[in-house]
Amino acid sequence: MKPLFVALPGNMELATALASSLDAEVATTNIRQFPDGESYLRFDTALEGRDVVIVCTLNRPDALAMPLFFAADACRDLGAASIGLVAPYLAYMRQDERFQPGEAVTSRYFSTMISRAFDWMLCVDPHLHRFARLDALYSIPSQIVHASESIAVWVASNVVNPVLVGPDSESEQWVAAVATSADLPYVILEKVRSGDRDVAVSGWQSQNWVNHTPVVLDDIISTARTMIETVEVLLRADMAAPVCIGIHGVFADNAHDDLLRAGAQQVVTCNTIPHMSNGIDVTALLAGAIATMLRT
Amino acid sequence: MKPLFVALPGNMELATALASSLDAEVATTNIRQFPDGESYLRFDTALEGRDVVIVCTLNRPDALAMPLFFAADACRDLGAASIGLVAPYLAYMRQDERFQPGEAVTSRYFSTMISRAFDWMLCVDPHLHRFARLDALYSIPSQIVHASESIAVWVASNVVNPVLVGPDSESEQWVAAVATSADLPYVILEKVRSGDRDVAVSGWQSQNWVNHTPVVLDDIISTARTMIETVEVLLRADMAAPVCIGIHGVFADNAHDDLLRAGAQQVVTCNTIPHMSNGIDVTALLAGAIATMLRT
Repeated sequence: MKPLFVALPGNMELATALASSLDAEVATTNIRQFPDGESYLRFDTALEGRDVVIVCTLNRPDALAMPLFFAADACRDLGAASIGLVAPYLAYMRQDERFQPGEAVTSRYFSTMISRAFDWMLCVDPHLHRFARLDALYSIPSQIVHASESIAVWVASNVVNPVLVGPDSESEQWVAAVATSADLPYVILEKVRSGDRDVAVSGWQSQNWVNHTPVVLDDIISTARTMIETVEVLLRADMAAPVCIGIHGVFADNAHDDLLRAGAQQVVTCNTIPHMSNGIDVTALLAGAIATMLRT
Repeated sequence: MKPLFVALPGNMELATALASSLDAEVATTNIRQFPDGESYLRFDTALEGRDVVIVCTLNRPDALAMPLFFAADACRDLGAASIGLVAPYLAYMRQDERFQPGEAVTSRYFSTMISRAFDWMLCVDPHLHRFARLDALYSIPSQIVHASESIAVWVASNVVNPVLVGPDSESEQWVAAVATSADLPYVILEKVRSGDRDVAVSGWQSQNWVNHTPVVLDDIISTARTMIETVEVLLRADMAAPVCIGIHGVFADNAHDDLLRAGAQQVVTCNTIPHMSNGIDVTALLAGAIATMLRT
């Protein structure tokens, strides 16, 4: 039997594209909330003996967690042979240790819940920096899809004389990968964070990059404070309006508009989280990775 | 060491009242959401060796589930001796079997998650009707607090010549308990439901209840459609404006206003879910039950 894709709310477009490129089916489901806020799920496609792939990007993890865990439990309950999770954006990758006494280590608790519910999982460029591999958190087989190649192609095709800029040391792994792939120069700045929405960036030297277009790159654009601060540093240093690329456009509140208003020439993201800024398509990369997970 | 109460957001008033009546402490915590929607939790009171009681009413179960499970995991992680859950309103008690093929049996999945995270739990009058006891769903020790006595006292003190009215057969267990406790007559009507917000109620005979004040009683007021339909049936039959009592006032959307506009004389609920209609205090009953759970 063909693999069966299940789309959580908001993920139907990607699930359909993935199923189409893998000659798989998409399940007909009814997933909704009762007026009192409880979730209801019904699978109108038979699951017995099927290899199920649940597609659910996790940019709103708390809102989607219960439907997601219920979907996995129901697939198990209804006889699925295996249940995988495709979470193009993986949540809860920041609090991976106890920075202050008494803190909940949510990365570990969340990965335990996911590992219990699914047989395998994959995601695009998770926010790994203290741990080198997902295996340090997830006990199920997992795979990481890297968007660097796709981003490199996009930059090479769309930006004249680019220099890649990473706002902070955490961004270096992504910036360096794209720079290597596209054979481009890059600069990593220094960031000091003093609150959820309060950051300062330093270390830019314009004289080295006359006539270059700065391409600011980070894995996640959430409040966009880091990227806005970086754009402002570059503009104050008389650089051309920067192109801003986020692998994952979470865009808390009005972050997307704020970033454009701050002077970004263009904001581009991968389609790991559906958004009008999606300019880089990772569907083919995801499909390839899913195929290898389904074969094992 | 004294038991330690932990309040999830929205539950501090009840947690404080419970701790006060049990000579227990309330933990100092920081539970909030990052701008990207992920939860952050920190316990500023030491948990090592403590018997922890987490207070979290579950009228918005999906929104609160992740903070709740993370809180339990963190308490375990930080060395709590035991972790109980006080959920005055317990969620996911409706979908306790597969009514249509392919449905997720969310009652069972949710109770499994709760049973894994906590050592014991208690709640006020859960929506049990197919199962007689919580043990059929929950594998941890549990206790049910019945509000019927408190409701009976309230009705006897506040309503002249009352007749209790249950809108449907599911309500009979609660209506009969209050009627017995207060030595009052009661009538159970018949309900036909054709959608989440679409119900019809029948079976009222006014001639038997001249000069009585109808007191409509149900366990949960959610959309209030059932209670509004009942109020309309009573008013069309020339009864006095009914008093409406819900053990749990979930009040989806504008349900509370809608019910008053439909002609209810007064809407009264227990304080299992904080709301302006809370007129019946179950704190003392809850405290008594918690004391027995902590002793075992």
